[in-house]
Amino acid sequence: MIEHGGNIYRFARILDREPSTLIDFSANINPLGFPEGLKEHLFSLMDYITSYPDPEYVELRDAIAGYVGVRKENIIPGNGAIEMIYLYMKSMKKDKVFIPVPTFSEYERIARMNSLAIEYLFTKNFSIDVERLVKEISPESILIICNPNNPTGTLISIDSIEYLLEKLSGLEISLMIDEAFIEFTEDYPESSAVRFINSYPNLFIVRCFTKFFGIPGLRLGYGVGGEETVNKMKEFALPWSVNILADISGRYVLKNMSFMEETRRVITLEREFLLRELSNIKWIYPYPGKANFILARLSIDTEELENFLLQRGILIRNCRNFKGLDKSYIRIAVKDHSSNVKLVEALKSF
Amino acid sequence: MIEHGGNIYRFARILDREPSTLIDFSANINPLGFPEGLKEHLFSLMDYITSYPDPEYVELRDAIAGYVGVRKENIIPGNGAIEMIYLYMKSMKKDKVFIPVPTFSEYERIARMNSLAIEYLFTKNFSIDVERLVKEISPESILIICNPNNPTGTLISIDSIEYLLEKLSGLEISLMIDEAFIEFTEDYPESSAVRFINSYPNLFIVRCFTKFFGIPGLRLGYGVGGEETVNKMKEFALPWSVNILADISGRYVLKNMSFMEETRRVITLEREFLLRELSNIKWIYPYPGKANFILARLSIDTEELENFLLQRGILIRNCRNFKGLDKSYIRIAVKDHSSNVKLVEALKSF
Repeated sequence: MIEHGGNIYRFARILDREPSTLIDFSANINPLGFPEGLKEHLFSLMDYITSYPDPEYVELRDAIAGYVGVRKENIIPGNGAIEMIYLYMKSMKKDKVFIPVPTFSEYERIARMNSLAIEYLFTKNFSIDVERLVKEISPESILIICNPNNPTGTLISIDSIEYLLEKLSGLEISLMIDEAFIEFTEDYPESSAVRFINSYPNLFIVRCFTKFFGIPGLRLGYGVGGEETVNKMKEFALPWSVNILADISGRYVLKNMSFMEETRRVITLEREFLLRELSNIKWIYPYPGKANFILARLSIDTEELENFLLQRGILIRNCRNFKGLDKSYIRIAVKDHSSNVKLVEALKSF
Repeated sequence: MIEHGGNIYRFARILDREPSTLIDFSANINPLGFPEGLKEHLFSLMDYITSYPDPEYVELRDAIAGYVGVRKENIIPGNGAIEMIYLYMKSMKKDKVFIPVPTFSEYERIARMNSLAIEYLFTKNFSIDVERLVKEISPESILIICNPNNPTGTLISIDSIEYLLEKLSGLEISLMIDEAFIEFTEDYPESSAVRFINSYPNLFIVRCFTKFFGIPGLRLGYGVGGEETVNKMKEFALPWSVNILADISGRYVLKNMSFMEETRRVITLEREFLLRELSNIKWIYPYPGKANFILARLSIDTEELENFLLQRGILIRNCRNFKGLDKSYIRIAVKDHSSNVKLVEALKSF
């Protein structure tokens, strides 16, 4: 099993304390939690757990389609972004996948599960040069882009994505863009590539409710793609992979526009706060990014810092298992102001 | 997509009525619903949806292991029984799967997804003759047995299963027993093959919370197998496929022994009631089974009956898409007494 952020259970077991008493900067979840009223809404509809979910998820797909601005035939829901990535790689029938690194480690693991050859593309200063990218990849493959990228926070501009799509469409290359964090970017929805779905059948976009809507426990993601792609993926989908409470929640939270706007406001503000504060600590070198987390390089021993913070109930994500990074890097989620202040104080006292 | 029972949404859309107003005899779910207090328990722990599930599901596996009487290393949890079946076929690395029919249609679909050759074994009077079975199968394959079998309700005795395991272990044949309905049988846990898990490494058992604990909407299943099998399957498992509310629910419902006993009492009673009543209708020929559903052959037009019942808000499962059956068969779930009476009355008035 790959090590991920957000495993508060393991650390709670190690420290022998309740998971809820930890401040978790290792998982990039919305610090505002989930939209108001969701708990009560779920409780009022709880009797639905005695029924199977709608295997076609008609209402959920309708709601998502309205939210992202496509037709419901372009939407496939799944058990988190992970299931989308798996089904996409499985159904595209390519031999090879190109992965610019550092990035989310599950792409590599899922490619292996599907017996795909993997080629890593190493980036300079963590920024993707699309012109170089186009020269490095070969036909009959899948290119995976995480935008904004986890763990660097780098955002590829919409013009660069259009350039990529233009160049790739003649090459039988399928482009998967993982937009798990796109809704945290200040200029969303302008930053999203969804607008290209109907013009480029080789484009597939992965999204999730996990991070932005603060419901990682419920497991809800979706893919946006051309009808042909979506139908191919359905052939390999297991029935009912989205549970009924995730289905109900997805439809509920998409109605709450003010939650979305407030999230973007808070994240922008708090990311700037953290960047400013971290820059003032002389052994931390943060990278400015566009997402709800910050990558930073340390000139001190990361493990020592990790343990120091852990004793104070604070979890951060070390980046030693990201290909292209090493143990001198950490990733810090942007959380609510009081948590961020606690982190900064703890770092300063180290 | 394969047609399954329990798709109340499709029929609700066709009839333009609320799904909850239908009496669903097409899905084999516990008529007692879920154990008391579950809703309130979930509500009190709802804030856990802001965290990822424990990727190792330590507490859930502990609870399940205690319930079935094995060690937690023998347990792998999943998104319903379906995910277990998929991971098992994917990780066993065999070329062929033997499926005695009629049975659950997803075995066939999942075998195809994993590019396995399929051989059907046709049964006589829907009963599996294990001696004949052993002669018909070839080495380096998977044999799938659903016990009690869906849709026939036939239960293979524990002696026959032991005989099978003995014969198969020299042949490099992996035996998967799907016990999705085993807890409904009157003499559970005696009827379960779990006792053989530690003596036969080629045995894998699939279970689910869906039917017996009345929570199909939550998506929770598990597998019981030797450590080697479980570890192989973990290599192909996607992380967090069980959502946190399913995790919490699984641990909660396993504590309620009286719910389990009451369920077996009611099902035994109501199955006998339905069998007696159906036998009195001259165009219905029910098969006596051991599960919480009844297979019946009709000497009238099934579709006409289906439509007649549908107009009365009653769903049954026609069996035309079960290999080895045809459109003259239906499957009826054993429900609570008042629903069963309504069904019998509707059938008599046809």
